[in-house]
Amino acid sequence: MPWDYLRPLLKPNQTKIVLLVMDGLGGIPMGPVGPTELEYAHTPNMDTLAADGTLGQTIPIAPGITPGSGPAHLALFGYDPLVYTVGRGALAAAGVGLDLRPGDVVARGNFATLDAEGKIVDRRAGRISTEEAAPLVERLAQITLPGVEVTVRPVREYRFVIRLRGEGLSPELEDTDPQQTGVPPKPVIPRRPEAQRTAELLNLWIQRAREVLADHPRANGVLLRGFATDPNLPKFPEMFQLRAAAIAVYPMYKGIARLVGMDVIEFEGERPEDEFAAAARVWDQYDFFYIHIKKTDSKGEDGDFFGKAQVIETVDRALPKLMELKPDVVIITGDHSTPAKWRSHSWHPVPFLIWAPASVRPDSQYRFGETACAQGGLGTFPALQTMPLALAHAGRLKKFGA
Amino acid sequence: MPWDYLRPLLKPNQTKIVLLVMDGLGGIPMGPVGPTELEYAHTPNMDTLAADGTLGQTIPIAPGITPGSGPAHLALFGYDPLVYTVGRGALAAAGVGLDLRPGDVVARGNFATLDAEGKIVDRRAGRISTEEAAPLVERLAQITLPGVEVTVRPVREYRFVIRLRGEGLSPELEDTDPQQTGVPPKPVIPRRPEAQRTAELLNLWIQRAREVLADHPRANGVLLRGFATDPNLPKFPEMFQLRAAAIAVYPMYKGIARLVGMDVIEFEGERPEDEFAAAARVWDQYDFFYIHIKKTDSKGEDGDFFGKAQVIETVDRALPKLMELKPDVVIITGDHSTPAKWRSHSWHPVPFLIWAPASVRPDSQYRFGETACAQGGLGTFPALQTMPLALAHAGRLKKFGA
Repeated sequence: MPWDYLRPLLKPNQTKIVLLVMDGLGGIPMGPVGPTELEYAHTPNMDTLAADGTLGQTIPIAPGITPGSGPAHLALFGYDPLVYTVGRGALAAAGVGLDLRPGDVVARGNFATLDAEGKIVDRRAGRISTEEAAPLVERLAQITLPGVEVTVRPVREYRFVIRLRGEGLSPELEDTDPQQTGVPPKPVIPRRPEAQRTAELLNLWIQRAREVLADHPRANGVLLRGFATDPNLPKFPEMFQLRAAAIAVYPMYKGIARLVGMDVIEFEGERPEDEFAAAARVWDQYDFFYIHIKKTDSKGEDGDFFGKAQVIETVDRALPKLMELKPDVVIITGDHSTPAKWRSHSWHPVPFLIWAPASVRPDSQYRFGETACAQGGLGTFPALQTMPLALAHAGRLKKFGA
Repeated sequence: MPWDYLRPLLKPNQTKIVLLVMDGLGGIPMGPVGPTELEYAHTPNMDTLAADGTLGQTIPIAPGITPGSGPAHLALFGYDPLVYTVGRGALAAAGVGLDLRPGDVVARGNFATLDAEGKIVDRRAGRISTEEAAPLVERLAQITLPGVEVTVRPVREYRFVIRLRGEGLSPELEDTDPQQTGVPPKPVIPRRPEAQRTAELLNLWIQRAREVLADHPRANGVLLRGFATDPNLPKFPEMFQLRAAAIAVYPMYKGIARLVGMDVIEFEGERPEDEFAAAARVWDQYDFFYIHIKKTDSKGEDGDFFGKAQVIETVDRALPKLMELKPDVVIITGDHSTPAKWRSHSWHPVPFLIWAPASVRPDSQYRFGETACAQGGLGTFPALQTMPLALAHAGRLKKFGA
């Protein structure tokens, strides 16, 4: 288990910590100069927290490294992403509540449209709706394989998850998704000899899947990728002695929270205020609240600078609902940067704000933004150090040494 | 090979990276307050890059550690200097193009003036010229030793390099240069038993050298130091997938570039514009250009504050020649600090500027100087992280994890 030096220092307390993660928060100006998305956004509530708190900027993985959401979240949760790797299939499975045991093999699946020759016409089957996909997932769930238990679960729209459970399985398999159209899906190819049987089973499953889907006009094929097994992560509540609640709309983020052992809170709605209301509902039962906002990243990926700024503003407007709960420590940050200018994740440092009235040393910054964060009192530091900072400000760490 | 996590992320691109190293760039004020050499210098071109780019400051080796040029350059090139050590002799040998194989032992040599009793009068033989030293090196090259091949090559002025090649040699030897006058040179003393024979061979060689040099009025003795062997470094072009060119005037910097596998570009002239012209000449053949400016360090070592500032200004004036080549990423930094006030290397952080119009997040700094760099958007970071940052800004790294 990591944090050898930290664990003996942990002490109980009644304090509440909120880690508010706006996915892909960091940005860059659209032109050679100018504001970032966060700097452009009107954020009076966050600016108040910035003035009373301390700013800094985090390096998600290492300088120059553009992270996926999985490793970036692991770092925020205190898991060195260069040590703990989690396959995308495992995230997806956890996201829909499909449990993983050692030895299981999981993968993400897409429905796809194939032409008469078996070539891919659409890798997402025309993005069929969750409702349209449900009976198709039912058909897939009927397929059996010799000697292993097969479970299929719907995700959103054209996505599903497949889990094989049995003896002697291996996730060392190549994706079948060629990431392009006009070519047939690849077969499942083993990367190592011990994955040979798993590959054969999955190829058989894919063949049967095409048979049961053959009459559908769009979703007549499947693509599998992100083969993975249980990452067997140390558990966050034990590691940091925190009863931890996760509040997220998107399955992947629920998934990673489940993998580290947080309780995923179910709630209605998708707006920031709905997420804050969910936190309010379970406020007394937990010490740590991970709250995830997805749409900052989605707008960044869409190249929508103003849309991303607006999402940030919706979070800001809802923020008083969160502050009414009287948290002791509030951290507002991102998991990585997703500059709208780039339409993709990037390695740029991530704005970080910590507010903790009992313990924060304020700096001279009074606005939450990249330039201010670069000059903030916390300096530039690895995202992996977020949890010790949170615990310290929450009065949950004893002195080290005499 | 280092950079395990980085290598799977490397992707090809057409982008060009320039790493412009002004040796010993960092400085401190001559008085209690005031500008550093870089801040005193008039650098409108660098300031434009600073305004459009991002500043930071690097720690060459570790806080408080004053580096030699060897380890400081290794860090910039992506080699942890606490892991990869290169003997000064190996640098000198590589600098004059003398190849090193595993098992070879090399050392730097000085001609010295000895008195009738064999005591050192001048450790550099009155700094005899390259021309005067040439026939003396020829005499040394005639000396043979039993069972090993001996090669001697001139460096500059009073300096030479000696290489022994044969079985069972060891570089675990003490320098013969006592670093003072009025005492005789020390014999070659082995640090470990396995170096006994190498020490005996070299002591025999030194004795013969004194015989063949006996009639020279000044260069009648030799001093050996920096015993080393092939450091067998991983190769930079392979490690980072970059065709790399090195443009330097001084042998030592050519040497370290050769040791890491860069191509050393030969050219006429010694001015910054000559170096930039050399880059222009081979621009299409390389992806990465290491350009080394020596005289910032030399002036710093001389205690010449204004001279160092003037050297920086000559680089600034020539800079448009470099920018005309339309590089994608330009990094301007030093390998370490050499404050004129100190007349020596120091551990102070080193100013760092990265300019990359496609990807940089600008900060609020608009002048290239130590104070601005300390408040720059990159923060304070290990020089070892220079290469990942360069690769990221050059669009040569894929995303880490999903």
